[in-house]
Amino acid sequence: MNRKELIGNIKKKKSFLCVGLDPEIKKIPRHLLEKEDPIFEFNKCIISATIDYAVAYKPNIAFYESMGIPGWISLQKTINYLEPYRSEVFIIADAKRGDIGNSSAQYARTYFDKKVSGFDFNAVTVAPYMGEDSVSPFLEHHNKWVILLALTSNKGALDFQFLNISNSDGKRLFEKVLEISSKWGTAENMMYVVGATQAEMLKEIRKIVPDHFLLVPGVGAQGGSLQQVADYGMNHDCGLLVNASRSILYASAENDFAVKAREEAKKLKDEMEIYLRKYSVI
Amino acid sequence: MNRKELIGNIKKKKSFLCVGLDPEIKKIPRHLLEKEDPIFEFNKCIISATIDYAVAYKPNIAFYESMGIPGWISLQKTINYLEPYRSEVFIIADAKRGDIGNSSAQYARTYFDKKVSGFDFNAVTVAPYMGEDSVSPFLEHHNKWVILLALTSNKGALDFQFLNISNSDGKRLFEKVLEISSKWGTAENMMYVVGATQAEMLKEIRKIVPDHFLLVPGVGAQGGSLQQVADYGMNHDCGLLVNASRSILYASAENDFAVKAREEAKKLKDEMEIYLRKYSVI
Repeated sequence: MNRKELIGNIKKKKSFLCVGLDPEIKKIPRHLLEKEDPIFEFNKCIISATIDYAVAYKPNIAFYESMGIPGWISLQKTINYLEPYRSEVFIIADAKRGDIGNSSAQYARTYFDKKVSGFDFNAVTVAPYMGEDSVSPFLEHHNKWVILLALTSNKGALDFQFLNISNSDGKRLFEKVLEISSKWGTAENMMYVVGATQAEMLKEIRKIVPDHFLLVPGVGAQGGSLQQVADYGMNHDCGLLVNASRSILYASAENDFAVKAREEAKKLKDEMEIYLRKYSVI
Repeated sequence: MNRKELIGNIKKKKSFLCVGLDPEIKKIPRHLLEKEDPIFEFNKCIISATIDYAVAYKPNIAFYESMGIPGWISLQKTINYLEPYRSEVFIIADAKRGDIGNSSAQYARTYFDKKVSGFDFNAVTVAPYMGEDSVSPFLEHHNKWVILLALTSNKGALDFQFLNISNSDGKRLFEKVLEISSKWGTAENMMYVVGATQAEMLKEIRKIVPDHFLLVPGVGAQGGSLQQVADYGMNHDCGLLVNASRSILYASAENDFAVKAREEAKKLKDEMEIYLRKYSVI
């Protein structure tokens, strides 16, 4: 999916909601445990319940990988289930990968080259620490995206991301990451992760990357404010994908979990529509 | 495996060699392609050929993950094959993972909790960008190790790792990573990745982390010098694991690949023995 198509879907669905698919066997409704593949059943119900309101899905690879081979099978089935919806949803592998060039090339094949691994994601999240040659192998894949970590939503973001860099007009590490890495690709094949818990920083970030899409986790369970994210971060193309995981997935732990997930997704979409109108995207 | 046992193995084998298991289907000898699982067959031959000279093995997860589910099966069989040697070799998942706390906890289970994922590595490589809570879930596993990226062996290391940090007596980012993260664990459960292509930096690094083990990739195919690594980086417990991958794995592409791999490993071990004696570790 290219940038134009993504923006088209946002306008059509009046939403910039990304649903995080981070299923935990201990948290999913009990009645699903009788199924052959409870994780896939859960994802299937969540996708069906939210597809009208979501423009993106983001499986967090950690949750699948930790189940061993059965986890990868559940992930594969989930992506296959999304196949008929490929023109309307952007699919992100939240993998936070990154290694020296020839290893990053392997990770890129994992997530982008269906012939090799069975997967065909639109984007993968990548860690910046190892620099350009750890990121560029992902950018070599046509019509695929890197979503680079800039400013994350966790407490540990304070450890290194806010360190002041010498001789840079007071720039902090996350700002140098944005400044330097934005030259590796374009707004057509790179996005950035910016945590919603750091919403006030979006104003500074927009000075460095006015056009790039930002993937914003941390709304909902992690406490970020959707209104602040829109006020500080939205650009004329929207430029935002806001992720919600736990608040949608676990809106209810009972038989009505899919209905409640749909209600939660609709609530977010309705609020998003207000901001899309406020900033004249639609 | 604890630190004392690791040092014991280094002294016994007179080696600090780590063999990187990064098999590529295009590079392994043709005759193995007839086997049911060529990747596992290749690893089995490499392990048998090098076990006398290696104190550690390091599968690079990128290479397995990119083959999809068959790749994970080859990796599982490889680790199972190492089972009888567990007391004499340290096994590292070179995965470069790292995410917010609850996701890192999932990655830690993947590599450390056999009951959950089938894997039981001794250590996993972790990226530092997301800070303490992205690393600490790995440290909660008893007798397991985090190997944190500090200074990597690739060209992209120059992009961020060498940025000067304000108000830090001229420290660069990789030095701040060492300084700050060394308080998260101890020399009993943390190591650092320091590329051999940056050997002269080992002197500075030893001022910050005199006792920690360093995992040093980049000797051989990437051009780093083993002598420099030992001269600048060795401490009284050795404190080094030097990795070689391609120079051993692909010493020959013919039927004699295992013999040639053994010769290459022995050559490195013989050189390592000289440095272990020079610095009175043995």
